[in-house]
Parts: sequence; structure tokens; C-alpha cells
Amino acid sequence: MGYYKSRGLRGSAFEELINLTNDKYKEQGLACIEKIPTPVKVTKINNEKRLIEEGYFEKKSSVDYIGLVQGYAVCFDAKETALDNFPLKNIHEHQLKFMQAFVTQGGKAFILVHFTKKDEMFLLPSELLFNYYEMSKNGGAKSIPYSAFNPMLRIYRKSGYYVHYLEALGTYLESFSTVRMI
Amino acid sequence: MGYYKSRGLRGSAFEELINLTNDKYKEQGLACIEKIPTPVKVTKINNEKRLIEEGYFEKKSSVDYIGLVQGYAVCFDAKETALDNFPLKNIHEHQLKFMQAFVTQGGKAFILVHFTKKDEMFLLPSELLFNYYEMSKNGGAKSIPYSAFNPMLRIYRKSGYYVHYLEALGTYLESFSTVRMI
Repeated sequence: MGYYKSRGLRGSAFEELINLTNDKYKEQGLACIEKIPTPVKVTKINNEKRLIEEGYFEKKSSVDYIGLVQGYAVCFDAKETALDNFPLKNIHEHQLKFMQAFVTQGGKAFILVHFTKKDEMFLLPSELLFNYYEMSKNGGAKSIPYSAFNPMLRIYRKSGYYVHYLEALGTYLESFSTVRMI
Repeated sequence: MGYYKSRGLRGSAFEELINLTNDKYKEQGLACIEKIPTPVKVTKINNEKRLIEEGYFEKKSSVDYIGLVQGYAVCFDAKETALDNFPLKNIHEHQLKFMQAFVTQGGKAFILVHFTKKDEMFLLPSELLFNYYEMSKNGGAKSIPYSAFNPMLRIYRKSGYYVHYLEALGTYLESFSTVRMI
């Protein structure tokens, strides 16, 4: 099975639930989050039919989601793992770099992680991700163990909010906040 | 000439200069701005070659650019006009709605406008855009006159920064600011 299909199958259900949640957040005025599509390089186009006849997916330079939550700028990725840990190879170096640049500018970056076997979801702060990434480069473990995920940052489903991450985000912001509404 | 080509020709040079400017801003740690690609709906794919064989452009639900500038969340679109005014039909209703949602969450939204005949660029605040849009719906003019563009928000080129909008943005933020670093 090829690249696109396997990608599609891997990420889509979780992402779709996040998209539905974001739609509801927007509807309720709770957040304004945009899903960044994977860019397509078009190499052949039928202008009359407005149809792309040839193209390919380009590497995304950033993360999956970016936006604003009540004055807080956030960006995040959504990842699933069938293991009992979170393999760092799930996050690409250009995504880490983007998150670091975003944090430097005063934003908050994180990963929404779904452990599919347990069916548990967590918010993984970028600070923790950066630490584990650095350690892995210096010979440390190549994954983040389940035990490192903070139960306070666990994400639950709630009446129509399939991945209701705003509660966990609130907890995260309280402990690490740098940007505030005035 | 069809949709894609004409779109490409219309927006590309100005957008390309903005992209180069954003790259330099990121390099210098001045801003972290992401260009949101137009989403493509793929209807046929060759998995072995990783090649899209059929697809079409979907309508973008938001704006062209989104990101962070030193603690300020911003989103903006880039538009060119060959006229002596800025026709409101250049901005679609779903873009206005996105900008309004973004502003409600504490962000700043604006348009970078290039008057091609004069070769002058301006930052157009969303507040002004919203006002003109409302007026147009109530029988007012269908465009924003050149005279309504604030000379204080004019954008200049500067050594490698082809569309150096951060200065105009600074002026804009000083006069309308609602979100600040602490």
C-alpha cells in the first residue's frame, strides 16, 4: 500500500474527530483553529474542466493545526500510536523547528496523542517533547513512555466535543503561560 | 484562460515576495508566519508512483497567512488591485467570517494590499474592512477608495525584505492593540 492511502488510514479518524471538535469550538466562540492542508504541487492541469491531472504531495513545513484560543496563540499536531509509548520518529525535525519558532514568538505548541490500544488521549506539551528529543539525540530513548504523560493533561470526550482538548489546554496554560489577554 | 492559471498569475508575484519576506522574518526570529495552502481534494491516486492522477482545488475556508509576531497572533490575506480602489469582491464572505472569529479570540486580522499601477503597498486593518463591508451591504460603495488607505500603514521594501510589513503592523498594533506579551 502506498504513501497516500496509508497516511490517510493512519491519521484520518483521529484528525476527523479533532476537526469536528474545532468546528464546534468555532461555532461556540471558544476557539478559532485552522487545519493546514498538505500542500500539493500541481504539474499538469486541465483549465477548462478546472481539474488537476497530475501532481504530488509536498512536505508540510509546519504542523497540522494553528490558531487562537481566547487570546492564546496555539499550534499543534495530532498523532496516534498503537504502542505503549510515543515514538519520537512520529515528529519530523521541521515540525519541531516550527514549534520552537512559534514558542519563541510567544505561542504555545503541543501534540495531541491518541494511544489507540488504551483509547486514551493526552496533550503532550512541546517543552516535554523538546526535552525527550534532545535526550534521544544524545543517546537517550527514542520514544516517550506512557508514564511520562501527565494525567492532568488527559483529554476526554464530552457531548459533541469528540476530542475536548480545551480543558487540558487550560491546565497546560495555567502551568506554563507566557501570553495573556489584557 | 481557466481558473488555476489565472489565479496563479494574479496572486503569485506579490505572494512570492511576501513568502520571501516571511522566510527572512523567521530566519531573523522576528515572526513565525505560515502560508496556508489551498486544499486539494484528491479523487484518483497512483500509490506506487505516489502521484496524484486526478483532483481539484477546494475552497479555502480561511485566509492566506496565519502566525505569530512577538506575542501577537495575526492572520492576513494578500491582494492586488490594478484599479485606484480596492474592490470588496476581492474578499470572500468566508474569509471575513474567519477574520472576525480570529479577532474575537484576541488576534489581529488585516489585508496586505498592492496597488499595482502606483506600485504602492498598504496594510488594511480588518476594522476598516469590516466597516466598508457592512456599508456596502447597506447600499454603500462596493470598494474602498485609495484615499481611505492610511499613509502611516504604507509598506515599503527594505534590504531583502520585499514586503516589509512589520513596521506598518507595529503602527497598527500600537493604535488598536488588545493582546500583549507579559
